[in-house]
Amino acid sequence: MKLATLKNGTRDGALVVVSRDLTRYQKVPKIAATLQFALDNWDSVAERLQAVYTALNDNATWDAQPFAESLCHSPLPRAYQWADGSAYINHVELVRKARNVDVPASFYTDPLMYQGGSDSFVGPHDPIYALSEEWGIDLEAEVSVITGDVPMGATVEECAGAIRLVMLVNDVSLRNLIPGELLKGFGFFQSKAASAFSPVCVTPDELGGAWQDSKLHLPITVHINQRPFGKPNAGEDMTFNFAQLVAHAAKTRELAAGTIIGSGTVSNKQGDLHGSSIENGGVGYCCLAEVRMYETIEQGAPRTSFLQFGDNVRIEMFDADGASIFGAINQDVARYEGPTR
Amino acid sequence: MKLATLKNGTRDGALVVVSRDLTRYQKVPKIAATLQFALDNWDSVAERLQAVYTALNDNATWDAQPFAESLCHSPLPRAYQWADGSAYINHVELVRKARNVDVPASFYTDPLMYQGGSDSFVGPHDPIYALSEEWGIDLEAEVSVITGDVPMGATVEECAGAIRLVMLVNDVSLRNLIPGELLKGFGFFQSKAASAFSPVCVTPDELGGAWQDSKLHLPITVHINQRPFGKPNAGEDMTFNFAQLVAHAAKTRELAAGTIIGSGTVSNKQGDLHGSSIENGGVGYCCLAEVRMYETIEQGAPRTSFLQFGDNVRIEMFDADGASIFGAINQDVARYEGPTR
Repeated sequence: MKLATLKNGTRDGALVVVSRDLTRYQKVPKIAATLQFALDNWDSVAERLQAVYTALNDNATWDAQPFAESLCHSPLPRAYQWADGSAYINHVELVRKARNVDVPASFYTDPLMYQGGSDSFVGPHDPIYALSEEWGIDLEAEVSVITGDVPMGATVEECAGAIRLVMLVNDVSLRNLIPGELLKGFGFFQSKAASAFSPVCVTPDELGGAWQDSKLHLPITVHINQRPFGKPNAGEDMTFNFAQLVAHAAKTRELAAGTIIGSGTVSNKQGDLHGSSIENGGVGYCCLAEVRMYETIEQGAPRTSFLQFGDNVRIEMFDADGASIFGAINQDVARYEGPTR
Repeated sequence: MKLATLKNGTRDGALVVVSRDLTRYQKVPKIAATLQFALDNWDSVAERLQAVYTALNDNATWDAQPFAESLCHSPLPRAYQWADGSAYINHVELVRKARNVDVPASFYTDPLMYQGGSDSFVGPHDPIYALSEEWGIDLEAEVSVITGDVPMGATVEECAGAIRLVMLVNDVSLRNLIPGELLKGFGFFQSKAASAFSPVCVTPDELGGAWQDSKLHLPITVHINQRPFGKPNAGEDMTFNFAQLVAHAAKTRELAAGTIIGSGTVSNKQGDLHGSSIENGGVGYCCLAEVRMYETIEQGAPRTSFLQFGDNVRIEMFDADGASIFGAINQDVARYEGPTR
């Protein structure tokens, strides 16, 4: 099934069930007022939500409304946990190659993961706010999952079964703040802006054969200012699948229902700078940093600039029939002018 | 006023107002069912909660119940954000000295802060669960604050005014997992177990003159296995006050109501290993790592071991009259045997 959260003036929005073709939605206040409530009580509500979904797709509900992505907040407008992996090691290899340092062998067996801020996500069509372009504003197009409760030390198999929902995410990074912050040794903090998630999240069964081995085997498409920028396949070159990422997160503590785990920037292994760009037949990139790394490796310095105020980023994924699965993350970059709530 | 969250079988527990002397509590379901709800709607509920508090202290409420710390969950059993600073630079200086490396000059002007997991806090009297003693289980006794909404780029003064509540925290660290994790460059993740907070949180005004310059000027007392281990003053040697820590967290993104910001392990500047221990007239330590650093610096290697299953940690703070302000964090270390919910 497909679920979304509509903005309604509250901090958590209103949970709705969305038709498979993203044209209609049905409110479900008597089943679950919010997505967090549904996740907290999944065993008792999932079946009832699924029944609404079936009826909605069959045009058998009594008060379906026209769905619009612009009505949506992120599926979880705020979450109790957002932890982002870096499962596409190709991305890490390029980072390191641009810095002339080796990738430690352990990176191929032990996932990289950072704890992100989850108190203030923005909606899929909300601006990417920043106070300065000098921060080096970059997109990161990723896939993510929402889990149920996971015990400490859960096996990879148990973690695969704990994946409740799948969605896309733009993990906005402030690249020029990263080097200083990583030098301090405590990981990312100020260098990560508020993330936005796709309008719709879906249960893994909704993905059919594209969900295999806890990976999503479809291209993720990225446009910057309406021009194609990336379309790497999220199922390829993913060194750690989502079950492994969840198990990594649960190694020393329980994860509570509603935990979001990200894949890290999707990145496929390609040839050189020329061949990797979409206009030259490559699959392109899911962040500006990646093309800048190719430029650094081959030309000695990056040439592509980071996002500027007024730029637009669009992230989407289409099924084999060309239909949008999650709706689009569609964000303009804008100067922060004051409180959004 | 003083607030607490009683365990009631739900994920968020039940908010109660607690009398100043921690002997009685009053349920307040008609004002705010949970602490998160109160924080989300602070402007409209704080005054009403304060009225209950006044009546409770005056013995003028109609259904006050006997308060017991063992009834409590952490004030926020789960939170949308938990970010922990490292404001007592003495602690960092000792870490670095034990490693024979200098403290970067920027550490005195730019706070260290890491994003922690906030989905699954444990109660103040719940066990510290781990799967292995080999993880190097350590306490970290700290002060923390809960904020209201904070705009991106808020000034230190604005952040001072956004501090809603103060409480203690045991930020349990798994020391033997830290070196490998820091080498990976993404900060702490598996090396931080679930934190526990004091039974009671209090508004800053409740602290009277002990709350000055956004610091809490009282000793934090730590016992390990009923023996005094630490009593450093949390108001001394704090390089960054809470307002500065909140401003650091809000530099590139909004903070949502219910954000918890920690001070880092409280640590006072002292002489040597001999003089720093409580039995020799020092103020002791708020984590085992600190005495191990003294041992490393003076004796070449640490001798004090980390916590073992069965050990007990008690963290508390007393006012000038010797009364416990927040109740005690009182945790046994235990082997994790399976899901706690």
